[in-house]
Amino acid sequence: MTQTTILPGADDLGALDSVKAVAAVAADAPLEAATIARRAVGPRDVRIAIEYSGICHSDIHTARSEWSQATYPQVVGHEIVGRVDAIGSEVTRYAVGDRVGVGCMSNSCHECSACEAGQEQDCENGPVMTYGSPDYDGTITQGGYSAATVIDERMVLRIPESLPADAAAPLLCAGVTMFSPLRRWNVGPDTKVAIIGMGGLGHVGVKLAAAMGAEVTVLSQTTSKREDSLRFGAAEHYATSGDEGKQNLKDLRGSFDVILNTVSANLPMDKYLALLRNRGVFVEIGLPIEKLDVSAFSLANGRRVLTGSMIGGIPETQEVLDFCAEHGVTPEIEVISASEVNSAYDRVMKSDVRYRFVIDASTF
Amino acid sequence: MTQTTILPGADDLGALDSVKAVAAVAADAPLEAATIARRAVGPRDVRIAIEYSGICHSDIHTARSEWSQATYPQVVGHEIVGRVDAIGSEVTRYAVGDRVGVGCMSNSCHECSACEAGQEQDCENGPVMTYGSPDYDGTITQGGYSAATVIDERMVLRIPESLPADAAAPLLCAGVTMFSPLRRWNVGPDTKVAIIGMGGLGHVGVKLAAAMGAEVTVLSQTTSKREDSLRFGAAEHYATSGDEGKQNLKDLRGSFDVILNTVSANLPMDKYLALLRNRGVFVEIGLPIEKLDVSAFSLANGRRVLTGSMIGGIPETQEVLDFCAEHGVTPEIEVISASEVNSAYDRVMKSDVRYRFVIDASTF
Repeated sequence: MTQTTILPGADDLGALDSVKAVAAVAADAPLEAATIARRAVGPRDVRIAIEYSGICHSDIHTARSEWSQATYPQVVGHEIVGRVDAIGSEVTRYAVGDRVGVGCMSNSCHECSACEAGQEQDCENGPVMTYGSPDYDGTITQGGYSAATVIDERMVLRIPESLPADAAAPLLCAGVTMFSPLRRWNVGPDTKVAIIGMGGLGHVGVKLAAAMGAEVTVLSQTTSKREDSLRFGAAEHYATSGDEGKQNLKDLRGSFDVILNTVSANLPMDKYLALLRNRGVFVEIGLPIEKLDVSAFSLANGRRVLTGSMIGGIPETQEVLDFCAEHGVTPEIEVISASEVNSAYDRVMKSDVRYRFVIDASTF
Repeated sequence: MTQTTILPGADDLGALDSVKAVAAVAADAPLEAATIARRAVGPRDVRIAIEYSGICHSDIHTARSEWSQATYPQVVGHEIVGRVDAIGSEVTRYAVGDRVGVGCMSNSCHECSACEAGQEQDCENGPVMTYGSPDYDGTITQGGYSAATVIDERMVLRIPESLPADAAAPLLCAGVTMFSPLRRWNVGPDTKVAIIGMGGLGHVGVKLAAAMGAEVTVLSQTTSKREDSLRFGAAEHYATSGDEGKQNLKDLRGSFDVILNTVSANLPMDKYLALLRNRGVFVEIGLPIEKLDVSAFSLANGRRVLTGSMIGGIPETQEVLDFCAEHGVTPEIEVISASEVNSAYDRVMKSDVRYRFVIDASTF
């Protein structure tokens, strides 16, 4: 990681607004060290000196133009934790020195019914995502793999001081992504929850659901992570592959109130829907590109529900941070330096991470 | 309709238990006049002198062995209205002379958690369906196209005297089938509901949802039933076929809180899910045999829900009867005689009925 990319305009900026970063420069090239421009701190903006930045699988999809064509150079990252080091003249919620975070969204219209309901992810005028998204000023947003960022205070989260700054980072995407459907479908004591997939999302889901008092079962291809599952609060961990998996899927029919599927591979849906109790809810979070094949009878029998979920709004993101502080829930992380990002991507692709990489932003 | 089939055992019965009926005798043969045996009235049984018996599309599927191989001769019919003419020694809920009804189920275990919750359709020991289903005594149940039946009082519904006996019949299947998902998904004033398909189910759904105060839109292949839709309480009726239909499906994106799909043809699901508002619910009621093709993104965007529904429990069936009496809701029916059943089947297959046939049981 030796090259430096100067983004358009960065040369014109003062020292405060020119920040070090790691950027994707092409779909098939490694990420590179870069210097990027951040906008001057506006009246409602908070400037954040970033301490840690989590790596999410979405970052890889975006950096490699797998979901849509990226505009390069592109800085990704939407699990940002740091401290406020400057505020605009109209900022009321945060002061210099506050520990804060930024998740998947860096702006929204703040006026539509979705925004008013705290569901900024459904903003009718299109939320501005933290990276790779047209901002309201026409620029493409640049994300968290960088030393600093400037964000409208309404999109900034407060990170409780009792949470470790590094482990808090994944809560801003993975955390709320799992928390939101658990809340929506009323998970708590007396509910049986299954989490499909024990990766970055899944392991946070296990910890959150267990902290909510639910009885949690992990469904994973193998039993290799069984000990981790139980340590994180699961009551059971079953393999889903091979003959053992077939038998498990039979034995577990009618078992769960809520199933969160974090796997993006296409599952045999009817077999998995059959794992639900009557009125149970299956939530797609992994979102495979291929269509789901579902029998209408699998849904009508016992009135089972199939739905999906993506991230969550700003109030709910704050809620998961506060919940984790209160219940001592922290994602399992491996802290890396900026120079290790490319090898970390390779390891994510091989599922060789337990369970989430977080970049130490002092190394940018 | 000239033949008479005597079911096994019918010869041995007294006059009270040998009743006239119309039976399917083979998958590819017309229904025939028949005499069937009804069991003697047990301690908890109610004997019902049937006045009217509705024709449901399910009857045709069963009579023709389209869903599974029927045991012939088979009397179908699960929209039964009549008067109690005998009761068992332990019956407490009904007296001779009461107007009563029987819907899709004629028994259930009454002990499992589903039965205790009044969701007998999900009975863990298998509900006994009103026809074509193994009864607890091992016989195959025989349905409502007959002059009388004998049913456990716990499965009997009270028909309010203010409802016309003939038009009340379809409420016992079509009525509760539409009422149950409307209730489950909290339809009322301030909700926008779409009903796909304006047939036996759909037209009852329009009337029920309108009576609940919802703003109702009918989505039908053509506009041929538009006037009916508006007369039944719909605010709008749109065609879904042809170029006009394509444009309508575009214009209606994001419009509905709840969509009830009564059509059993396989729809382009992603286009129809896009008609939902955020958090909207699409309920499959028509239940096509082919699998549904659904993009996980259609569900995750706005957290839309795809679910299904079949009939409803005994308490909810009573509820729809009482609701219809209170709100003056009655299905649109055409009363026929027993000799017209086969031609009625042909007309149902051609969608040539507005909107439900009901057999006058005095003609058996």
